[in-house]
Amino acid sequence: MIVVMKPRASARHIAQVIASVEADGYSVHLAENDTQTLVGVVGESATPLNLEKYAALDGVERASRVNVPYKLASREMHPRDTVIPINGAHMGANKVLVIAGPCAVESREQIIEIACAVKEAGATALRGGAYKPRTSPYSFQGHGEQALKWLAEAREVTGLPVVTEIMDANLVSIICQYADILQIGARNMQNFTLLNAAGESQHPVLLKRGMSSTLEDLLMAAEYILAQGNDRVMLCERGIRTFEKYTRNTFDLNAIAVLKQLTHLPVIADPSHAVGLREYVGQVALGAVAAGADGLIIEVHPQPDEAVSDGRQSLTPAMFEQMMQQVRAVAQAVGRDA
Amino acid sequence: MIVVMKPRASARHIAQVIASVEADGYSVHLAENDTQTLVGVVGESATPLNLEKYAALDGVERASRVNVPYKLASREMHPRDTVIPINGAHMGANKVLVIAGPCAVESREQIIEIACAVKEAGATALRGGAYKPRTSPYSFQGHGEQALKWLAEAREVTGLPVVTEIMDANLVSIICQYADILQIGARNMQNFTLLNAAGESQHPVLLKRGMSSTLEDLLMAAEYILAQGNDRVMLCERGIRTFEKYTRNTFDLNAIAVLKQLTHLPVIADPSHAVGLREYVGQVALGAVAAGADGLIIEVHPQPDEAVSDGRQSLTPAMFEQMMQQVRAVAQAVGRDA
Amino acid sequence: MIVVMKPRASARHIAQVIASVEADGYSVHLAENDTQTLVGVVGESATPLNLEKYAALDGVERASRVNVPYKLASREMHPRDTVIPINGAHMGANKVLVIAGPCAVESREQIIEIACAVKEAGATALRGGAYKPRTSPYSFQGHGEQALKWLAEAREVTGLPVVTEIMDANLVSIICQYADILQIGARNMQNFTLLNAAGESQHPVLLKRGMSSTLEDLLMAAEYILAQGNDRVMLCERGIRTFEKYTRNTFDLNAIAVLKQLTHLPVIADPSHAVGLREYVGQVALGAVAAGADGLIIEVHPQPDEAVSDGRQSLTPAMFEQMMQQVRAVAQAVGRDA
Amino acid sequence: MIVVMKPRASARHIAQVIASVEADGYSVHLAENDTQTLVGVVGESATPLNLEKYAALDGVERASRVNVPYKLASREMHPRDTVIPINGAHMGANKVLVIAGPCAVESREQIIEIACAVKEAGATALRGGAYKPRTSPYSFQGHGEQALKWLAEAREVTGLPVVTEIMDANLVSIICQYADILQIGARNMQNFTLLNAAGESQHPVLLKRGMSSTLEDLLMAAEYILAQGNDRVMLCERGIRTFEKYTRNTFDLNAIAVLKQLTHLPVIADPSHAVGLREYVGQVALGAVAAGADGLIIEVHPQPDEAVSDGRQSLTPAMFEQMMQQVRAVAQAVGRDA
Repeated sequence: MIVVMKPRASARHIAQVIASVEADGYSVHLAENDTQTLVGVVGESATPLNLEKYAALDGVERASRVNVPYKLASREMHPRDTVIPINGAHMGANKVLVIAGPCAVESREQIIEIACAVKEAGATALRGGAYKPRTSPYSFQGHGEQALKWLAEAREVTGLPVVTEIMDANLVSIICQYADILQIGARNMQNFTLLNAAGESQHPVLLKRGMSSTLEDLLMAAEYILAQGNDRVMLCERGIRTFEKYTRNTFDLNAIAVLKQLTHLPVIADPSHAVGLREYVGQVALGAVAAGADGLIIEVHPQPDEAVSDGRQSLTPAMFEQMMQQVRAVAQAVGRDA
Repeated sequence: MIVVMKPRASARHIAQVIASVEADGYSVHLAENDTQTLVGVVGESATPLNLEKYAALDGVERASRVNVPYKLASREMHPRDTVIPINGAHMGANKVLVIAGPCAVESREQIIEIACAVKEAGATALRGGAYKPRTSPYSFQGHGEQALKWLAEAREVTGLPVVTEIMDANLVSIICQYADILQIGARNMQNFTLLNAAGESQHPVLLKRGMSSTLEDLLMAAEYILAQGNDRVMLCERGIRTFEKYTRNTFDLNAIAVLKQLTHLPVIADPSHAVGLREYVGQVALGAVAAGADGLIIEVHPQPDEAVSDGRQSLTPAMFEQMMQQVRAVAQAVGRDA
Repeated sequence: MIVVMKPRASARHIAQVIASVEADGYSVHLAENDTQTLVGVVGESATPLNLEKYAALDGVERASRVNVPYKLASREMHPRDTVIPINGAHMGANKVLVIAGPCAVESREQIIEIACAVKEAGATALRGGAYKPRTSPYSFQGHGEQALKWLAEAREVTGLPVVTEIMDANLVSIICQYADILQIGARNMQNFTLLNAAGESQHPVLLKRGMSSTLEDLLMAAEYILAQGNDRVMLCERGIRTFEKYTRNTFDLNAIAVLKQLTHLPVIADPSHAVGLREYVGQVALGAVAAGADGLIIEVHPQPDEAVSDGRQSLTPAMFEQMMQQVRAVAQAVGRDA
Repeated sequence: MIVVMKPRASARHIAQVIASVEADGYSVHLAENDTQTLVGVVGESATPLNLEKYAALDGVERASRVNVPYKLASREMHPRDTVIPINGAHMGANKVLVIAGPCAVESREQIIEIACAVKEAGATALRGGAYKPRTSPYSFQGHGEQALKWLAEAREVTGLPVVTEIMDANLVSIICQYADILQIGARNMQNFTLLNAAGESQHPVLLKRGMSSTLEDLLMAAEYILAQGNDRVMLCERGIRTFEKYTRNTFDLNAIAVLKQLTHLPVIADPSHAVGLREYVGQVALGAVAAGADGLIIEVHPQPDEAVSDGRQSLTPAMFEQMMQQVRAVAQAVGRDA
């Protein structure tokens, strides 16, 4: 249920509504649209919610059911865009932000070199895998905590905040020591233990769509994080699995446009994983920005053909720089800051 | 096999190569890259092709196998972009062209009204269904020849060339009387009888990707038309079927980028069918243009909610006009003429 | 709408209902359940159907809307199983029938040899392609009318009725001269011109599910044929396209169970195309029969590795014979005649 | 690499091979085919494996690379079927075993009632969810440890071993106290932390295929468990996501047949989740058994329409009993013990 207060409802009236909701056994999340306070009601209780009772309270304009299962993630409960501050920049605001870096952190030198290069080209944050989800137990699984330390060094050198993947709820505290943004990968999008832990951490989270997840599934996964009181969640379209074999995945362009309307959370595109072949990453990135993406996450490697993982889809620094210029041009063309 | 002639090979040397190919029982298709003539060899024959023999002919630089099953459609055999003249405009050249109109031609007044509106907004061609593929035998199947006549009238009034769907090889001659471009729909992408007939017609063809067709399937379907000596083929990404339920189909953005590299044929996007909900059509259209689409095909209807078909995905003329302005801005941002 | 007559409604009362339906501008299809006559109403008319008016007619038990878009194909309008006589056997009755033969008719000797082998092993009908749908225009397209004649010879020798694919509405009359059952392939499942022509032919039709068609799409395609007054339609699950790469397609076992409930038409399985690898065809065939399939269609070739097409998925005659024994055992286990 | 010993190779020769492998920095897994010992070599090392060196060792018949990325899970390294003892029964042996029970453990009475019913009907093990993966954070998440205790009570009453889902690596020890088999669900198939923990537990594991996982992905997930020295892994086909909307998922029948050949691990089918509608569960179950499944896992609930989750796909005890009879008949028809 959502209770929409009258435009100039008093704090006392709002407090009365909150008290009533809590007396009924539910939780409250406050939000605002341009002129009004919205009281969002979530959770489960044996007491059914009586819309008429709430509509009759002082200062209330109307009370209505939320028709989607993702409550806190919905535009209904939270009409305004969520903007997530990242080290002085703002994800979800008017500027398109770019996160870039290698698939895996391979060495101190590698990550610092790439960090400098992507910063120079205009990236806002640095990505790099310390713990890698690998299909095979025999593949390189990442340098772990050592890689986290190298990432932190790269941040010191460049000032770029760090995004890194978390695969294990037990590692939340150590990763939060080093990283600025927790990435939850496609394979873990419905790892509810991990979603809860990421929510509790109160760290910003970049949540990737599962390979065969619907947009509603993705929003429900975000809801787990939001339900822990952590509303700094970015959603990421990274391609879905279809019958097409030429590309690694299929970039669902519709997802960008649809998510921007269904939810207030920032929407990011990952063209590297979506297409999987470096020669097409730039074009897919431009398409995502033109369709309304708030940000991009891009794999960059100085010698892609020698990368320990995902080399086929990594841009060289020179390709990345060229892409950044085109991204700025397209962003401006659709009315965003460049 | 493809035989690449030396940069200034004489006509006599080229003719000798052609004669040799034909003596071996194959067909020849000539093309050019920036500096050279390419002799493409297709077909089947009991005589195997001897690369060394061809490489040794006078004026020949090299002879090599074409590694993809679509020969005439490939960049290998035809490096330069194919440009298809449409009533003074050029599909596949630097300007992004837009085809627009209603799903179905409903009346003389309707089609003329829409034709005027989309022309005013900058469309290059008029679409409208005379024969409609409908899932149900009980649904409206189109006004047939009467609709073709109305389309022709609308062309007279506006000067816009006409694109209309053909579902039946027997109707090629009548539709070619009225239409400038034959559209082959997703359901008929592997209707080989129809592909052959459209090839023989020598009319330009707009070929839509099947709902579950790979990019290679699409290129092989184009190859049927090209093999009839008709090289005026435009390919169209119109969304594929996936597990996602919120949208009608899934727009495969990768397809735009990949097709532009694999083939020389113009690539068009159909955001109306791909997303199926009018509020998202504009954003998907912009994404397609930014990723490199040569053209768009858009459904427009003055009263979408009263349309006999596909109303949910049709833009109003006002929405279309706004989209056209944005398309021009994005096209310019990626270096195309606006 | 469906009008259910009272158990012993008189012919006069039934005729009155029919007259009323026709006066309203609709068509009538009669069916029966165990005790009653059902008057099915289909088509479009400007006169809306008034359920109450029909319910009040003499001899009528009730009138109700049909809640699915496929009317004639539905169990609601036609509760009893449709049984299609095939040369003395009955598809859709208690015995599981098997159609077998090569992908393509390659020669007179080949088709007669295989026909004898599959008959010996217990097949009820002979399949063989005369006109082949091929992805490439350069591949073997079938021996055409010559192959039809060879098929007819094989029928003369063995007594097996002939099933062959039709891809072109213009070929209906010639193929009907030679073949007993028209096969419409996956690529043509929504070739509405062809569906109408097959319906008009009044020949039995084996209709394959499209590669990305829903079960409702398949039933709507059948509805086109049924709407022409031809109710001898068999539906065929032949695998759908998914992300799985190891097999050619994915056999949707649910489809067998679901179709048997939604429709009265016989349901056939094509494990050869569904799995695409001969070593698995037998197991998939047994699964289909256990789940309720009325029949199977199986590719058989004496030298699969030399077959001009689909060799990888063709059984040898010896493998086919073994499969037939297992099919009989499983059919008996689920209460069917062996 | 796999080293195949000569038929009567001595223990000393085998030990020499093992020593050599370990000296090269790899791990060894021993297996046998009908007559020989196989030395499987897995892991990563800086020393490349020299096939010729191994082939020349005493007692060695041949040494060869394993051509699939799943090594321990492959038939190449482990030709014989793995048989997993479950409380006196044997999964992967000739008898088809059935695991049954409710989606979620709702109360002590409920789980004991169902346990008795499914045992009576012939089930070999009891399933029931204590920790439930739920799409919504607001849905019932399971009774947790309390439910584990009720499951243990039901085991005491009936003697049925208990299968329950584990979602969190931290819960391995507590769940292992109560459960006989750990179930890893589709959403966690690539939760590598959980796979490693389940491997280390040395408890039998029932591993479900992810919603969009290929068969190779599934085998690689199993490889994680096997690489921890735990070879008691059962694979489970539970339906994949496709475009079909009528059913909850699409049961990939091919998967049963293919997995039985690619791997030595037992293969189980979950028709309840695969089709999602109780009226079809029985038919899908029979199809799976006929195609070669070693076992089934079936949801059963005394009042399905009042179940807290998955009621739509739960069989009543009476339906389950009927299904069991049919399963026995089909199992016998394909040569298995009933």
